[in-house]
Amino acid sequence: MKLASYKDGSRDGQLVVVSRDLSTAHYATGIATRLQQALDDWNFLSPQLQELSQTLNHGKARHAFAFDPKMCTAPLPRAYQWADGSAFINHVELVRKARNAEVPESFYTDPLMYQGGSDDFAGPRDDVIVPSEDFGIDFEAEVAVVTGDIGMGVTPDEALEGIRLLMLVNDVSLRNLIPAELAKGFGFFQSKPATAFSPVAVTPDELGASWQGGRLHLDLESVWNGKRVGLCNPGPEMTFHFGQLIAHIGKTRNVRAGSIVGSGTVSNKDWSRGYSCIAEKRAIETIESGAPKTEFMRFGDTIRIEMKDADGASIFGAIEQKIAPLHAA
Amino acid sequence: MKLASYKDGSRDGQLVVVSRDLSTAHYATGIATRLQQALDDWNFLSPQLQELSQTLNHGKARHAFAFDPKMCTAPLPRAYQWADGSAFINHVELVRKARNAEVPESFYTDPLMYQGGSDDFAGPRDDVIVPSEDFGIDFEAEVAVVTGDIGMGVTPDEALEGIRLLMLVNDVSLRNLIPAELAKGFGFFQSKPATAFSPVAVTPDELGASWQGGRLHLDLESVWNGKRVGLCNPGPEMTFHFGQLIAHIGKTRNVRAGSIVGSGTVSNKDWSRGYSCIAEKRAIETIESGAPKTEFMRFGDTIRIEMKDADGASIFGAIEQKIAPLHAA
Repeated sequence: MKLASYKDGSRDGQLVVVSRDLSTAHYATGIATRLQQALDDWNFLSPQLQELSQTLNHGKARHAFAFDPKMCTAPLPRAYQWADGSAFINHVELVRKARNAEVPESFYTDPLMYQGGSDDFAGPRDDVIVPSEDFGIDFEAEVAVVTGDIGMGVTPDEALEGIRLLMLVNDVSLRNLIPAELAKGFGFFQSKPATAFSPVAVTPDELGASWQGGRLHLDLESVWNGKRVGLCNPGPEMTFHFGQLIAHIGKTRNVRAGSIVGSGTVSNKDWSRGYSCIAEKRAIETIESGAPKTEFMRFGDTIRIEMKDADGASIFGAIEQKIAPLHAA
Repeated sequence: MKLASYKDGSRDGQLVVVSRDLSTAHYATGIATRLQQALDDWNFLSPQLQELSQTLNHGKARHAFAFDPKMCTAPLPRAYQWADGSAFINHVELVRKARNAEVPESFYTDPLMYQGGSDDFAGPRDDVIVPSEDFGIDFEAEVAVVTGDIGMGVTPDEALEGIRLLMLVNDVSLRNLIPAELAKGFGFFQSKPATAFSPVAVTPDELGASWQGGRLHLDLESVWNGKRVGLCNPGPEMTFHFGQLIAHIGKTRNVRAGSIVGSGTVSNKDWSRGYSCIAEKRAIETIESGAPKTEFMRFGDTIRIEMKDADGASIFGAIEQKIAPLHAA
């Protein structure tokens, strides 16, 4: 099934079930009002949501209405955890190669992961608000999962069983703030403004055979200012699958329902597939010609992130954001 | 007023108002059931909680019962943000001096802060569960604030107005996992298991003149295995006050209601005051004699963290935790 949260003036939005083709939706009122509520009590509530989903898909839901992604908050407008991996080692290799740095051996066996801010996510059509263009504004197209309760010490295989939903992510990054933050060693902080998510979160069964072994084998499209710049596959080259990423979190703590775990920027070895963040394009330019040529984003720029199935149908709906200043003129 | 959350089998606990002397409590039923709910709608709900608090303090609340800290979850058993500063530069100086490293000049003007996991906090009397003693188990006694909604671009002075509550913290750290994580640059992750909080969160007015300019001027006591090892004052030597820490978060994003912001390990220049984490004791030993002598915590060890007012009355109640293995024999 497919779930979304509709803007209703509240902090958590109103849970809606969305039809498979993203054409119609139905409030989940009577089952659960908020997505976190459904995640908190998944075994009891998800069969009821599933039933509504089937009725909706069959065109038989009485109070269905046209689905409008502009009405969506992030599926979880705020969450108790947003842990983002950097699971595509190709991305790390490129960025390091561009500055003549080695990739430590441990990066191939131990996932890189940072704890992100999760109190104020952006909806799929909300502006990316940044105080200054000088911060080096970049998008990052990713895939993320939402978990149920998973206990400390979980194995990667067990962790896969705890995945409830998948979403797309725009993990906006402020590149010019990153070097100083990484040098401090405490991780990203000011360099990561509000993360945005796709209109719709979907259960793994919606993905069929494309969801295999904790990896999603469908192309992720990134369109910057109307031009497609990336069509990368997050499947085969994902160095650590989602079960491994969750197990990484679970080494020393429990992972509680509603935790969001990200893949990191999707990146493929075949450069002809393009890029899922500008930093990678700049790394390639540096490797090829000694210096980056592509500039970061400017106010007014747009970014569109979407994934389609084999029939060309959008699975999660599109993230479509515009970059905007904090204090508009 | 003083607020706590009682264990009731739910994920968020049941909101109770606690009397100033911590002797009695009263369910806030009819006003709000969860603390996050009160924070989400503070202007409307806090006057009602305040009224109940006054009735309780006057011994006139009809259904008051004896307050029992063992019944408490963390005031917020899960939160949308846990951002922990390292605002006592003395701590950083000591740790760096012990390994002959300089403190970068920027550390005196730009706060160190990491994003912590916030989906699974420990209650004040819950065990600290750690898979292995080899991880180097340490406590960290801190002060934290809980905020209301604070917008991006906030100034430090404005940010002070957004502080709703204060609490004590045991920011448990796994010291032997930290060097490798800091080397990766992505910040603490596995090195930070579930953070614990004091039984009670209090509004700033409960602290009177001890709360000044975003700093709390009362001694914070740390008792390890029954022996007082620290009585440090988090006030005068806090390099960055809480308004500055919140403004640091707010540089590139909004800070939403219920965000928890920590001071970092409280540390004083006067070594006779002792220590608020074992790592600091070890740093002092290294500076004095070339090597650390004090070992980290073992299973069965206890830690007690408490703060008393000028009359010797406990303000927040005590954090009292025992270190325990993940799989008890």
